[in-house]
Amino acid sequence: MSAVEDRLAELGLRVPDVAMPVAAYLPAVRDGNHIFTSGQLPMVSGALAATGKVGTGPGLVSAQDAEKLAQICALNAIAAVKALVGDLDKVTRVIKVVGFVASDPAFTGQPGVVNGASELLGAAFGGAGVHARSAVGVAVLPLDAPVEVEIIVSVQD
Amino acid sequence: MSAVEDRLAELGLRVPDVAMPVAAYLPAVRDGNHIFTSGQLPMVSGALAATGKVGTGPGLVSAQDAEKLAQICALNAIAAVKALVGDLDKVTRVIKVVGFVASDPAFTGQPGVVNGASELLGAAFGGAGVHARSAVGVAVLPLDAPVEVEIIVSVQD
Amino acid sequence: MSAVEDRLAELGLRVPDVAMPVAAYLPAVRDGNHIFTSGQLPMVSGALAATGKVGTGPGLVSAQDAEKLAQICALNAIAAVKALVGDLDKVTRVIKVVGFVASDPAFTGQPGVVNGASELLGAAFGGAGVHARSAVGVAVLPLDAPVEVEIIVSVQD
Repeated sequence: MSAVEDRLAELGLRVPDVAMPVAAYLPAVRDGNHIFTSGQLPMVSGALAATGKVGTGPGLVSAQDAEKLAQICALNAIAAVKALVGDLDKVTRVIKVVGFVASDPAFTGQPGVVNGASELLGAAFGGAGVHARSAVGVAVLPLDAPVEVEIIVSVQD
Repeated sequence: MSAVEDRLAELGLRVPDVAMPVAAYLPAVRDGNHIFTSGQLPMVSGALAATGKVGTGPGLVSAQDAEKLAQICALNAIAAVKALVGDLDKVTRVIKVVGFVASDPAFTGQPGVVNGASELLGAAFGGAGVHARSAVGVAVLPLDAPVEVEIIVSVQD
Repeated sequence: MSAVEDRLAELGLRVPDVAMPVAAYLPAVRDGNHIFTSGQLPMVSGALAATGKVGTGPGLVSAQDAEKLAQICALNAIAAVKALVGDLDKVTRVIKVVGFVASDPAFTGQPGVVNGASELLGAAFGGAGVHARSAVGVAVLPLDAPVEVEIIVSVQD
């Protein structure tokens, strides 16, 4: 098992099997020494861990819960990378993360939510996990997911 | 004519002339062996094929119609690539697609909509057209377009 | 001072010191000859220059004001690039810009808003500043910022 997966195991996390999209695209594509993942939803064993918009109030997903969902998205992104590179210790850098948060229009805490992904990537990859990032609040996400995360990483040959 | 355009012609589709943006940017930029397109709207002969938000109900664009609009966006993205590379058979891979769907907050079928783009890219480029993808539901798009699609492709010298 | 900064000075603009994010990410990451910035907000001296959604009507940020905010975002993106490359004259191309505009659902003028960023990049980098671009209208942005801009540039060794 890779050192990356050892570090995740210390957090009680396991890199899941990658879920194949139902449509005409892939979980991730390798282009030379780069891997671009698809937008990852907080799927656990094939089902969304939660649905809804993030915000404060009845019927909304709390920021704290959404941060945990962003962590799941990042774990699924790591799984998509692993499916292509095999050994996660070949990841040399997490370059870029985009976190989309399905947001109640009054909710402005997207950075805190996406930290769930950023901090997991830092925990998994150490200094190589510190990335550039955009966090935005969108109207709605596929299947009513509260969070979606995509990443770009570089890998060694 | 390229084999890519032959395949599109079999679907009754023609790669249009690229529409030049009115502003200080380009339809696409080549960087080494990569081409990044701008976000492409469903323009046909210089006008949007439809406007509005996607969803179910009066005044909304249906998912089925939006899927066809996403196909038009992808065709315009192919046109933007062609304007830079000339021969579309030089495209070695469609690496990444982002599909933005202007969505009624209750509409969660963004993947089905963006399949209109993904499937066209698969039909045009075959195995080289299968890509990583993010689909998100946004509040509103330029000119009230229902869909916007951007792509990254690699090309050979 | 770089020629890029001379041109900005002629517009009365100064590249600010880069603001470090509070979270587990960086303002920008260099990957080989490319720099990916994080999404930049219209921060001036550590505070947002304005907050709210962009649109027409009471309580909304006007398109004209938002265009100026997009310019500030682009200036902050330039600052993030400078922090990595040192001399901004080493920037060989602005490849891609994504502009997220926190939008009232009835506002469809995102391209005009994001022109504030595109035109500044053109003014700063000349022909090398002309880029591919996506402009989208999102529900809400971090800290209630009206605009967020991320860029990808290439740099020489």
